[in-house]
Amino acid sequence: MTTVFKIGGSVIEDSAMMESFCREFSSFPGRKILVHGGGVMASELQESLGQRPVKINGRRVTDAQTLKAVTMTYAGWCSKILVACLQKYSCNAIGLSGCDADIIRSNRRPPLLMDDGVSEIDFGFVGDVRKEGINTVRLAAFLDMGLVPVINAINHDGRGQLFNTNADTVASSIASAMKADLVCCFELDGVLRDIKDPTSIIPCLSESDFESMKSDGSVADGMIPKIENCIKAMRQGALSATIRNAMSINGRTGTTICL
Amino acid sequence: MTTVFKIGGSVIEDSAMMESFCREFSSFPGRKILVHGGGVMASELQESLGQRPVKINGRRVTDAQTLKAVTMTYAGWCSKILVACLQKYSCNAIGLSGCDADIIRSNRRPPLLMDDGVSEIDFGFVGDVRKEGINTVRLAAFLDMGLVPVINAINHDGRGQLFNTNADTVASSIASAMKADLVCCFELDGVLRDIKDPTSIIPCLSESDFESMKSDGSVADGMIPKIENCIKAMRQGALSATIRNAMSINGRTGTTICL
Repeated sequence: MTTVFKIGGSVIEDSAMMESFCREFSSFPGRKILVHGGGVMASELQESLGQRPVKINGRRVTDAQTLKAVTMTYAGWCSKILVACLQKYSCNAIGLSGCDADIIRSNRRPPLLMDDGVSEIDFGFVGDVRKEGINTVRLAAFLDMGLVPVINAINHDGRGQLFNTNADTVASSIASAMKADLVCCFELDGVLRDIKDPTSIIPCLSESDFESMKSDGSVADGMIPKIENCIKAMRQGALSATIRNAMSINGRTGTTICL
Repeated sequence: MTTVFKIGGSVIEDSAMMESFCREFSSFPGRKILVHGGGVMASELQESLGQRPVKINGRRVTDAQTLKAVTMTYAGWCSKILVACLQKYSCNAIGLSGCDADIIRSNRRPPLLMDDGVSEIDFGFVGDVRKEGINTVRLAAFLDMGLVPVINAINHDGRGQLFNTNADTVASSIASAMKADLVCCFELDGVLRDIKDPTSIIPCLSESDFESMKSDGSVADGMIPKIENCIKAMRQGALSATIRNAMSINGRTGTTICL
């Protein structure tokens, strides 16, 4: 059985948090894969380089210079500081982009038709993970060797082009393809019934619960795509999907999606 | 039998050269490893970020922000564009830093005592590959899987610290440890007897030839460390060491070190 963890860039940015996460993750039993983001750090790099990060519907419009900045951030700095920190805790991590050993292939996202039905938005070098795009044989071979893949959201089309992909989607695609447990980590202990009450964690969230929470506004903007991504993973073959605090991944709290 | 190729950043910077190199490298027969640099691109990134690259005796003084810039450049951009390009030519490349799967460990370089015998230069996060620091078992396992390791000069100490190491040294250390053939690629067809005559390639260079060429000034600054690095590789166990044009690695020209 394999567990796929997803963490956001906020865990990597704060060195104390990264240290704490890596220690806990290292002691998590069984076969495991870590998928990480790094969006805030990529935007910071872009700004330091005098570039202006552009997002539409939460997705980064990725021209050539943006692709370079996100590749440097995700596959370079975020990947290697995470791997070095995990190695310190005797977790034999290996940082990988989708092009490495051809583990993930994606297609360029087609332009998005706007509401006017005429104009289009071209996201540039943004990829969507292909159906059958996860190389499960290769990932299983790495796990069999005792390695822990640490995967970022840069992948490729097999024809020499890199793409910037969404890390949540990468995690759910891997969990689905590997028939794994998916654990999406963030800064709270789970989905809260009442956002003001940190003890109101919903242990088991059904799709109808989710729909009613969306309509009464009790799930917030950032949480909606996280839950949707977990539901998608379950539908496409993941064994389970849980939303949990990045700082207590070995704990029992968290919200499990119950379809 | 394994061949370890070393290329400089200039091959990666020029997209036509990279394409040409990747096509040739992909068709090179047998087990192979590619080690790459990227120093010029790292300096360009540093300058774009308002940092001033500092080098002493050709080595980059690496403070925390320099370490981040070189890691982003070597392990991020250079590694992934090379790997994606090799994948295009059906070469199953995997981009790795030393921390990945713990393939290379290094120690922090001790401060350099200056000629006055008192003052010291601290190179910061610069590493020297440890004796026994090459994980030959792991590299052989990747080669057995049909993978082609593409290795950059970022490695680690196993205690969570990344280091910036010299790519030529990484290549010679790997070639020595793996008892491999080392091919150091650059922009000329080999070591020239007469720098003005491109046909004056020395096919077989002995150490005494090298010493006399150094004393009569017929080998230039940049070539001296390359040849020294090849001699070191041979002394420490490499099967052979050749200096060859990056644009014709399958050719027969080049200078082989004959000890």
